[in-house]
Amino acid sequence: MPGKLTVIGVGPGDPELLTLKGLRILKEASCIFVPKGREEGSSLALSIVSELLDLSGKEIVEAYFPMRKTRGATEQGDLDNQWNKTVEGVLSRLTNNIDVAFITIGDPTVYSTFYYLHERLLDLNPDIIIEIIPGVSSIMASAARAGVYLGIADERIAVLPANYMSNLTDTLQRFDTIVLMKVNKVFVQIRQKLDEMQLTDKAVYVARAGMQDEKIIYSLNEVTDSDLNYFSMVIVKK
Amino acid sequence: MPGKLTVIGVGPGDPELLTLKGLRILKEASCIFVPKGREEGSSLALSIVSELLDLSGKEIVEAYFPMRKTRGATEQGDLDNQWNKTVEGVLSRLTNNIDVAFITIGDPTVYSTFYYLHERLLDLNPDIIIEIIPGVSSIMASAARAGVYLGIADERIAVLPANYMSNLTDTLQRFDTIVLMKVNKVFVQIRQKLDEMQLTDKAVYVARAGMQDEKIIYSLNEVTDSDLNYFSMVIVKK
Repeated sequence: MPGKLTVIGVGPGDPELLTLKGLRILKEASCIFVPKGREEGSSLALSIVSELLDLSGKEIVEAYFPMRKTRGATEQGDLDNQWNKTVEGVLSRLTNNIDVAFITIGDPTVYSTFYYLHERLLDLNPDIIIEIIPGVSSIMASAARAGVYLGIADERIAVLPANYMSNLTDTLQRFDTIVLMKVNKVFVQIRQKLDEMQLTDKAVYVARAGMQDEKIIYSLNEVTDSDLNYFSMVIVKK
Repeated sequence: MPGKLTVIGVGPGDPELLTLKGLRILKEASCIFVPKGREEGSSLALSIVSELLDLSGKEIVEAYFPMRKTRGATEQGDLDNQWNKTVEGVLSRLTNNIDVAFITIGDPTVYSTFYYLHERLLDLNPDIIIEIIPGVSSIMASAARAGVYLGIADERIAVLPANYMSNLTDTLQRFDTIVLMKVNKVFVQIRQKLDEMQLTDKAVYVARAGMQDEKIIYSLNEVTDSDLNYFSMVIVKK
């Protein structure tokens, strides 16, 4: 496989949180794939990159795929088609000796869309060369902006997608720091659970960390519907 | 307080993984504090920075403090003195209108030395302005180099300092991804535990991710004493 695929984490939103390596590779790349989903991540990734470099002359491919698996055979068939189209698009460029950069917000290994594609790419061509360039995760950026630390010394950290509510009590009991990702859809239940466990005053709500419309709210009772955002998390620091 | 303290995560080791923001602030800073401990992190942070910018003309303060709390009153007294010296050094510069940059490897909120100082600084002067610039954590960098992802969809991630062995069985059962940090001193016990739970083939050992002497070993049975390193972790991906 003559071309190389480089997956670049472009950081949590502030363009200046891109790494030097990410910037260099994006400048060199002639083709950039941008995941385009129903949710906001895709347009944010492209806007970060377009603030930092001149995209004219580069091929920008907006590759549709959704953030989450969906149920139902018909819909799944449609998703498979979309994914396969993206996989074929990447592979055809690599075959034609074109290096491809694939951007994701935050860090590629933390709940990014890329890993839905990864297996399909390797299934179709096991010889493909993939390099992953890590980025600043929104988890660390949110902690930094909120003025809390995630861990020190022997502390244990748990990161949970907040739609996974089972065992939450247990995890809240056993860990020193609990990061609840993407809380917007289950915020009321989470606040209730934290109230029950008398952890509300140990929690902070952070949305769009480091961006212009960032929200950092230390009193969860003051969080209103208009504060809720796809790019949000609750950090519980005991 | 006229001066400002900026704490910068310089990333996991590869100088190119510094952020654009970190580089800009370090270039502007006239004074850079480097934590100097008994362990390797301090010299690595300074070496990353010195590969990226000209340090001549800048004041470099090597501030001694250890990575971990130690036991015993005499030793604790000595540590307190060292920490207080560093705190006074930072505060005196801020008072004299000198901006201070404080560098840590990886990300400042993830097991960094800085948070041992944070409270003392605020105790002595609650008006101090502190900005935390997040960095690429070794956790994400190690996953990227090893070709594993930390989480997708509803998966749960646990990060444990590996000297905290209690409840390890439970955590290994309940989480999808378990990151065991700084495994070098307890590697044999960890390998034994993973063997017992038939998780050995789900684990990868990563040391010094992204550095020239990086080690990525997928078969834990092949890890020898000479592979063990302070900058190491085991990632278990079920």
